[in-house]
Amino acid sequence: MTTPLRLGIAGLGTVGTGVVKIIQTHAELLQLRTGRPVVISAVSARSRNKDRGVSLSDFGWEDDPVALAQRDDVDVLVELMGGSDGPAKAATEAAIAAGKDVVTANKAMMAIHGQALAEAAESKGCVIRFEAGVAGGIPVVKALTEGLAGNQVQRVLGVMNGTCNYILTRMESAGLSYDDVFQEASDLGYLEADPTLDVGGIDAGHKLALLASIAFGTKVHFDKMELEGIQRISIEDIRQAADMGFRIKLLGVAQMTGRGLEQRMSPCLVPASSPLGQLENATNMVVLEGDASGQIVLRGAGAGEGPTASAVMSDVLDIARGIRVSTFGQPAATLAEPVSAKASAAAPYYLRMALLDKPGALAKVATALGASGVSIDRMRQYRHQDPTAPVLIVTHKTTRDALDHALSDFAATGVVDGTPVAIRIEDV
Amino acid sequence: MTTPLRLGIAGLGTVGTGVVKIIQTHAELLQLRTGRPVVISAVSARSRNKDRGVSLSDFGWEDDPVALAQRDDVDVLVELMGGSDGPAKAATEAAIAAGKDVVTANKAMMAIHGQALAEAAESKGCVIRFEAGVAGGIPVVKALTEGLAGNQVQRVLGVMNGTCNYILTRMESAGLSYDDVFQEASDLGYLEADPTLDVGGIDAGHKLALLASIAFGTKVHFDKMELEGIQRISIEDIRQAADMGFRIKLLGVAQMTGRGLEQRMSPCLVPASSPLGQLENATNMVVLEGDASGQIVLRGAGAGEGPTASAVMSDVLDIARGIRVSTFGQPAATLAEPVSAKASAAAPYYLRMALLDKPGALAKVATALGASGVSIDRMRQYRHQDPTAPVLIVTHKTTRDALDHALSDFAATGVVDGTPVAIRIEDV
Repeated sequence: MTTPLRLGIAGLGTVGTGVVKIIQTHAELLQLRTGRPVVISAVSARSRNKDRGVSLSDFGWEDDPVALAQRDDVDVLVELMGGSDGPAKAATEAAIAAGKDVVTANKAMMAIHGQALAEAAESKGCVIRFEAGVAGGIPVVKALTEGLAGNQVQRVLGVMNGTCNYILTRMESAGLSYDDVFQEASDLGYLEADPTLDVGGIDAGHKLALLASIAFGTKVHFDKMELEGIQRISIEDIRQAADMGFRIKLLGVAQMTGRGLEQRMSPCLVPASSPLGQLENATNMVVLEGDASGQIVLRGAGAGEGPTASAVMSDVLDIARGIRVSTFGQPAATLAEPVSAKASAAAPYYLRMALLDKPGALAKVATALGASGVSIDRMRQYRHQDPTAPVLIVTHKTTRDALDHALSDFAATGVVDGTPVAIRIEDV
Repeated sequence: MTTPLRLGIAGLGTVGTGVVKIIQTHAELLQLRTGRPVVISAVSARSRNKDRGVSLSDFGWEDDPVALAQRDDVDVLVELMGGSDGPAKAATEAAIAAGKDVVTANKAMMAIHGQALAEAAESKGCVIRFEAGVAGGIPVVKALTEGLAGNQVQRVLGVMNGTCNYILTRMESAGLSYDDVFQEASDLGYLEADPTLDVGGIDAGHKLALLASIAFGTKVHFDKMELEGIQRISIEDIRQAADMGFRIKLLGVAQMTGRGLEQRMSPCLVPASSPLGQLENATNMVVLEGDASGQIVLRGAGAGEGPTASAVMSDVLDIARGIRVSTFGQPAATLAEPVSAKASAAAPYYLRMALLDKPGALAKVATALGASGVSIDRMRQYRHQDPTAPVLIVTHKTTRDALDHALSDFAATGVVDGTPVAIRIEDV
């Protein structure tokens, strides 16, 4: 196979530029490893003349990414434009219709249209791969799809949005409020144009939904994910959690239970001494649990030019080497329609509430918990800060239903001010 | 491709039994993922009638693994006997000669004969793969060979011998001597028949040499590795290192420098708060540093039935899926003959010595260091414990040559009792 593999790159932002740099600087190395030259035939982007620090003069140019995908001298469309629909989807569909392979970094498109795109690709004998869509430079799609292919996967979890992890660790280290750090992150250009994608957990949820599909052989179902962002996490909770040996992370967890597929992306407490608890700043971590492999932990940069371009190249070079694995690890038509189940596994919870200064107040709270079958592992009441006293409780394992029952009973006690904070403590 | 992939399994110890279990319990899942049945045609082991908890009645039997490799109904030899030569090598060579693919967990054979075996396999159009040979269940060969294929790798490092890491962490947690924990590990069956393979760093060295070959495109050269075991690590050093915020690990480091390929497997101090420093018990961790990907950390079980069988299956299922990657990531004939370089990069060092109670003793030591160009970052002298006082020094970055010069000068000072301990502090 000394025929060159010819790429058409749609999108020349940070990642696209990174891909061009790798191909330009490592041409010989890539050919040695794949047995064939990997070349860029043409590119497409919003602006042709923007200075990106790389020369585009050797490549053809297309204003329209669809035209790029259809070029005769393009074997693989590398889609790096982003956006679940619009030009990204149109170019991807055009490439597949023309019988070309697709490599994309577009988690939103794959989480929403992945099933249809994978089916279309397979009907044309093409592959569509998305390593760069999940956890940046960490080769987690490959580890799960190929490295753990002999396993029944039991659970996939992880911290997959660097911006959220940056915000949470920065709140703790600097003692700043969520709003202050959000503003900082915004000033630093860390946030998506629509920041809800990050802080609302949507971006991380897309990634988790993709991993869940591979792990459990089910059609990707982002719509059914339980989703909660970090917007309501207070510095008070971060401090109290730390005092009790925990850190708060935006944690994704997917597992198959007897009742169906559980997928949730939400703030959780994890032990501060665990690998996930120790994860600082914008780093990502994914934990794969297989029935044979046991727990495999993968950690690396979740974003950025180099790491994401490295992941794009992993897919491109797989194609150059003749590696053709189904998008979700098995033929798309064989993926099961998942029964989505609300997360039901019992877990300990962290509770924080403001207790009014009334006789028997603490007893009433404890009684309400007990009446709902929620037992207390640890409790701390602090000195009253007029008119209320902070109370922290770590429960023993309980279901969310039992906890919600207790929380609704709190209102009737008349001793709890406002709505208590309840955060799940994940066993990692 | 609905033709079954037919395996011949040579060796039915822990790992072989694990592989049989996966194939028997997950037959449907494996077929879904690879598009074809994966079946065991025949097996070979020392004893046919030993109870392994799995039924062998559906499989053919061969007393001779070479005969197994040559059977017409075997497409892939799964070599799980171990030993760098002898039956493992004979069966592997026989399989390749007969045009069959080979999957092996045999790091010793691959580290010593890997180049010749890979060349033979490639000349016959076969593949020989060894995911299970490095770091057990962690898919690190795949991550490096495929996931980071777009990178110039800068450094590979890690803790790759679970037994050594168990011994070192157990010494620290229980406050026991090396000899005591070695005996414990022996009683628990954690040690190889020849324990030097573990505690002498040879087993981990084999693994590092294999990763270095892939990372740097060089022929595997285990002979040129700088190798030092953990036998001389004392509980005293573990305690003192901990006091200064470090842990002692048997750490492998491979990097390509302007002077050649550096490969060393030796005890090092690493920051206690780093991922490597926090690695407990028999867990393995490999860190891959690519020029684009940045630092990728992989962590998981380094041994055991399930994890190692999971890695074997990763290679088997790759072959079932038609994935055929060169053994060391590029054609064996294109691998360069490495120029082996003694590790020369400057590093800080930890020194511990026993100082005699003489006037000006400490000044003489400090002067000897200064005269060799070694500067002191931190120093602690403890109260004399007749007739000597323990002195701990953390140096600034220095070369090993400069340090050795200073250490040899210590003898002439007449104030240092015995030979100082010197351990490199690795930047991880």
